[in-house]
Amino acid sequence: MLERIKIVLLEPSHPGNIGAAARALKTMGLNRLVLVNPKTFPSKEAIFRAAGADDVLEQAEVVNTLQEALVDTNWVIGTSMRLRSETRKLYKPRACAEAIAKASDDHHVAIVFGRESTGLSNNELALCHDQVYIPANDVYSSLNLGAAVQVICYELRMAALEASQAAEQTMPKQEDDPLASADQVLGFYSHLKRALIEIGFMDPKQPKMLMERLQRLFNRAHLTVKELNILRGMLSAIEKYAKK
Amino acid sequence: MLERIKIVLLEPSHPGNIGAAARALKTMGLNRLVLVNPKTFPSKEAIFRAAGADDVLEQAEVVNTLQEALVDTNWVIGTSMRLRSETRKLYKPRACAEAIAKASDDHHVAIVFGRESTGLSNNELALCHDQVYIPANDVYSSLNLGAAVQVICYELRMAALEASQAAEQTMPKQEDDPLASADQVLGFYSHLKRALIEIGFMDPKQPKMLMERLQRLFNRAHLTVKELNILRGMLSAIEKYAKK
Repeated sequence: MLERIKIVLLEPSHPGNIGAAARALKTMGLNRLVLVNPKTFPSKEAIFRAAGADDVLEQAEVVNTLQEALVDTNWVIGTSMRLRSETRKLYKPRACAEAIAKASDDHHVAIVFGRESTGLSNNELALCHDQVYIPANDVYSSLNLGAAVQVICYELRMAALEASQAAEQTMPKQEDDPLASADQVLGFYSHLKRALIEIGFMDPKQPKMLMERLQRLFNRAHLTVKELNILRGMLSAIEKYAKK
Repeated sequence: MLERIKIVLLEPSHPGNIGAAARALKTMGLNRLVLVNPKTFPSKEAIFRAAGADDVLEQAEVVNTLQEALVDTNWVIGTSMRLRSETRKLYKPRACAEAIAKASDDHHVAIVFGRESTGLSNNELALCHDQVYIPANDVYSSLNLGAAVQVICYELRMAALEASQAAEQTMPKQEDDPLASADQVLGFYSHLKRALIEIGFMDPKQPKMLMERLQRLFNRAHLTVKELNILRGMLSAIEKYAKK
């Protein structure tokens, strides 16, 4: 299970936190770290703080955008204290880890941590299917980035250990209909937007959260490849019709 | 419950870890930090790493010996990876936190963290009634001190929240966007079918499970009223377009 999980740090500004995150991953048996546009990387500070987990740093994937970080994943979970999500599922860490442990092997998970200062923007959260938050002290809820990664990875490990003990309760695989990848889903969203503008349902000048709402709906459903193909077929039919 | 717990750091050598521990305590609603013979304290580095938790640092008790740190406590739990204890109870963090939550109010707890390098000696462990360990990666089990404090404090907080049931579903209410009723959803499905036939995407003579698949997708998402209205608006726009 732990191999199906990427930990994504979005624009981390302190190299020490990158090192701490690497160490947190490795102590909990994870090893896939992705850095989106880190301010300073590689760095001595990160290696120092990683202690013996420098191999995780060396293997870390460095990309420029969150979208790139999500390639090859089909279940994106954003960590955020913003509890205003209307429709995304909002997990506590334990429930989140248990859900991942219960999901079948074709769920490739990215857990996204926002910037130290400002976290994830609404647009970035809109790329997430679900949300996880650490129920911290109301008066002082600001966990250090490395510490937050440690807590989440700890719960992932606990769930993995429990699952391997409880054994073989994995959900039946949808063998002939795997989940769509994150970039396939993004492709569908672009197509949907084009079609909505074409038929005059969406005014690009006054989009009114329309795409955000629709994305949230489809994110929640976890589209399969077949479903995605049907939906894209529908969009093509609409466009063809529109051109007549 | 959290007020009954002291977190004791034995001879911490890195001031950054003291700061990180203070922050870990405060984010999880604890505030009683005891430092036994710290190498450097107070220090700028600790204040920096404590971020907004400098009040926990200021109130920290500094003593010379572990015995002094344990005054006023009656339940001493040592954190250690040494699993060789013959007689002490050996807890995982969750079970440990749950045991503390279940204990009566006259249990005053100290949780003792050893040195970064060498942990707790056998003599020091002998002062502990019980032991707690974080089940880490066999290959690389060395958590950073601050990260270990974070994990333990996190479990203490989770147990406290659960016990007091103040956990009271921090989930946001979907007050302004209730789930669509079953018949509203069925109305949408009829509408969808009409539109798909109209644009020539679905052949009513050879429907090929199309509606079944789409219904499954939307059923899985549990449509809200607002989402349903958006989707029906889209269908109407398609139909209007089709009539031009």
